[in-house]
Amino acid sequence: MPLLGLLPRRAWASLLSQLLRPPCASCTGAVRCQSQVAEAVLTSQLKAHQEKPNFIIKTPKGTRDLSPQHMVVREKILDLVISCFKRHGAKGMDTPAFELKETLTEKYGEDSGLMYDLKDQGGELLSLRYDLTVPFARYLAMNKVKKMKRYHVGKVWRRESPTIVQGRYREFCQCDFDIAGQFDPMIPDAECLKIMCEILSGLQLGDFLIKMAWKDVRHEMVVKKGLAPEVADRIGDYVQCHGGVSLVEQMFQDPRLSQNKQALEGLGDLKLLFEYLTLFGIADKISFDLSLARGLDYYTGVIYEAMLLQTPTQAGEEPLNVGSVAAGGRYDGLVGMFDPKGHKVPCVGLSIGVERIFYIVEQRMKTKGEKVRTTETQVFVATPQKNFLQERLKLIAELWDSGIKAEMLYKNNPKLLTQLHYCESTGIPLVVIIGEQELKEGVIKIRSVASREEVSGGGRNRRDEVFLPFPDSVRNMHLLAEKLSSWLIVVEMNKHPFQMTIAACEY
Amino acid sequence: MPLLGLLPRRAWASLLSQLLRPPCASCTGAVRCQSQVAEAVLTSQLKAHQEKPNFIIKTPKGTRDLSPQHMVVREKILDLVISCFKRHGAKGMDTPAFELKETLTEKYGEDSGLMYDLKDQGGELLSLRYDLTVPFARYLAMNKVKKMKRYHVGKVWRRESPTIVQGRYREFCQCDFDIAGQFDPMIPDAECLKIMCEILSGLQLGDFLIKMAWKDVRHEMVVKKGLAPEVADRIGDYVQCHGGVSLVEQMFQDPRLSQNKQALEGLGDLKLLFEYLTLFGIADKISFDLSLARGLDYYTGVIYEAMLLQTPTQAGEEPLNVGSVAAGGRYDGLVGMFDPKGHKVPCVGLSIGVERIFYIVEQRMKTKGEKVRTTETQVFVATPQKNFLQERLKLIAELWDSGIKAEMLYKNNPKLLTQLHYCESTGIPLVVIIGEQELKEGVIKIRSVASREEVSGGGRNRRDEVFLPFPDSVRNMHLLAEKLSSWLIVVEMNKHPFQMTIAACEY
Repeated sequence: MPLLGLLPRRAWASLLSQLLRPPCASCTGAVRCQSQVAEAVLTSQLKAHQEKPNFIIKTPKGTRDLSPQHMVVREKILDLVISCFKRHGAKGMDTPAFELKETLTEKYGEDSGLMYDLKDQGGELLSLRYDLTVPFARYLAMNKVKKMKRYHVGKVWRRESPTIVQGRYREFCQCDFDIAGQFDPMIPDAECLKIMCEILSGLQLGDFLIKMAWKDVRHEMVVKKGLAPEVADRIGDYVQCHGGVSLVEQMFQDPRLSQNKQALEGLGDLKLLFEYLTLFGIADKISFDLSLARGLDYYTGVIYEAMLLQTPTQAGEEPLNVGSVAAGGRYDGLVGMFDPKGHKVPCVGLSIGVERIFYIVEQRMKTKGEKVRTTETQVFVATPQKNFLQERLKLIAELWDSGIKAEMLYKNNPKLLTQLHYCESTGIPLVVIIGEQELKEGVIKIRSVASREEVSGGGRNRRDEVFLPFPDSVRNMHLLAEKLSSWLIVVEMNKHPFQMTIAACEY
Repeated sequence: MPLLGLLPRRAWASLLSQLLRPPCASCTGAVRCQSQVAEAVLTSQLKAHQEKPNFIIKTPKGTRDLSPQHMVVREKILDLVISCFKRHGAKGMDTPAFELKETLTEKYGEDSGLMYDLKDQGGELLSLRYDLTVPFARYLAMNKVKKMKRYHVGKVWRRESPTIVQGRYREFCQCDFDIAGQFDPMIPDAECLKIMCEILSGLQLGDFLIKMAWKDVRHEMVVKKGLAPEVADRIGDYVQCHGGVSLVEQMFQDPRLSQNKQALEGLGDLKLLFEYLTLFGIADKISFDLSLARGLDYYTGVIYEAMLLQTPTQAGEEPLNVGSVAAGGRYDGLVGMFDPKGHKVPCVGLSIGVERIFYIVEQRMKTKGEKVRTTETQVFVATPQKNFLQERLKLIAELWDSGIKAEMLYKNNPKLLTQLHYCESTGIPLVVIIGEQELKEGVIKIRSVASREEVSGGGRNRRDEVFLPFPDSVRNMHLLAEKLSSWLIVVEMNKHPFQMTIAACEY
């Protein structure tokens, strides 16, 4: 409270008298009355100390705010993921953040204890959603939907011990793509793997490999196809030795397998899958993993996980504990668990581990010292003169109305240097300057923040070309941008791409 | 259970023996063991009846799923809102879905009882966020941010009695824009009103009016500016009589006010605000409202609400109870409530009532019988022949890899009619057809679903032009699209804009 120490005696007396006043009539008691706050500026400071001695400002354990820097990285990555989902014909969907508790119970096995329950405030017992798959299955059963290809991007919540170093939080984003419906075997499964590859290639995170859990493949063969366990294990020997691309072909060349009718049948789906993956050009990205364990309880078939490989070119970087960045699999039984008659809807899907991907991208940017702009502002409206607020307001409204992203300082008389510094620190590439001279000539000046070059135009008396009076200055700026190509190149060379003409196309 | 009735006696016996088996070793008990499910297909149906006699599949009270149809409308509207926020230089941000309960208490007055609390599962007491403003203020105080222009789009939760007819739910989306910081008076306030106007104009919902709460303006004048209550009420008479555009000017012409020094000072901010609104070209959109009441407890200054006006041109439509579609105001005290020393950060902001807007747009589409596509698929890959799965898979992978949104049926041998029906029902504008003839000639056929016109190309033996073999068919399609402009026009006339060339630019 340094301020109080400096108060003269008279001010103390006045402050005390204010504090001793009864609360005004309009004060509800729930909130500090604003009129009192207005009357005694220092009161709130005193009250703050009296009322909140132990108050800690924080986010809940295991959660965090996403700053503008986080949001920029997220937006880019999510855009890429969602555009891939849409490329494969998926529809968007959303479900409530919470479900009836009984909808979620008995779906996650041992992990059920990690669910966030809502307090019983009278009414239904609710829990925050734990993933996006169970709500999707509930949606299908509830609406009797038998076929659907949908994506879903949303938050889920798990009360795990947060490992914040690895970018794991109790609140996190999931990006799911699923295909529900009865189709010919392995076609949707192959598409899910194709989507994983497209997204991981598109994100340019380096090499990756998709590993299939051998245990689940074996289980499928023995239980569903009736393969003798010893034959399955002979296949397992292959998986262990060759686990790579031409695996299935090699197995078919082994007489011990190819002459065993059961083995051939058991290998049928696997062969089909690899045939499709080859047509998709991604067979070399898939291998088997003997150690991979079944994840959530609802998976019924093969599960797979995509792992990033640390490439030699990234040797200079800090080693990242990356691990799995995507996972998926088949869950043919889940929808039936919601249907009163147990009617099944076979499903296959995948989930992109976007939180881990966000973390990797953020770490790489940190290592490289890359900075991101947190706004998209294209033009800053500045003035070198006093009393130019009105002109700035008029000009910026024109820019906004033309769909151009523009900012200015909320000051009556800002210094020009302050205005230019603002552009430099926030990465705004262009400044339009309006002063007395410009207003007199009916022109505006455009300045490249990076190169400090300036051009002016848009006036009545220049070059005998298309001249528009000042209120049409915006259209003039587009005109200028098209003509001054050499200047534009300078701007681009300084890595501040000129955005204004693009903006004119966008809107 | 119609299936069970049809079972022969032997099947019954087999089914029973399976049901009487002990659970297998790998079964955790928490979830039905998948191997058992696989062995006895009908078991799950029986179990479903036994285990879930009273199980109701539904979403929690006052919530709902957002179907693909909802999502399409939302995406369009949110895109427009967010692009306006970005145009004004706002950064994105997000906060956790829940906060410490004490962060939210004493911020919402009587409405505090409507907060969703989380169950005490050991640890902190948490509540779901009730709006996006209090988390923003908490963020500013926690990070000692003194200046920030940010937008935030996210879900909030309130345990209100749901009025589902009017589109009000317990879970809903908010879109907020706020300017925090100490600036020269009324400039950020005017920008907030400008943003409201830009968004409401952009959404083309019809005429609208922004109403300012007179009670709050009066309170400001009397308490903050020290205006005598009787002078404030004289101003109030004006508001009541003229409540429109030129209000402030008229007041300044009244000698009873213009010759009263106090009144002039009291009117200063109001004059300034209307001056800025005039420069922004939106002064005629703002009026006063004597009945508008203060909303949430944290507002400290003028609050305003935007109302849609039912225009005569929409007379044919079902009357909508639209009311407020945006609201905002100043809350200079909120951040100080979180700061241990009570340091204030003045804030002004607005919230777009997107849920109501979604509802209005959906209702209008319903009235007009408008249909929306829920996918963005540009091309469907079809075949008239059997055993063409491999070729279809290869071609669709090429399309995906070229960034083209493509779908096909997950069937080995679908009928051509089924494939074309799929395109018609989902609105896919183009089909590429590949059959024996096309494969032999090394061409593909493109068909407009709407006009049923067909062209083929991309072959080695056509028109002596640029000919590429089959694997490059995708590039050929672009080539075709550029040349066949008359055909393209036919497609466009049928309101299925040709997307493929656009796609080629996008990626």
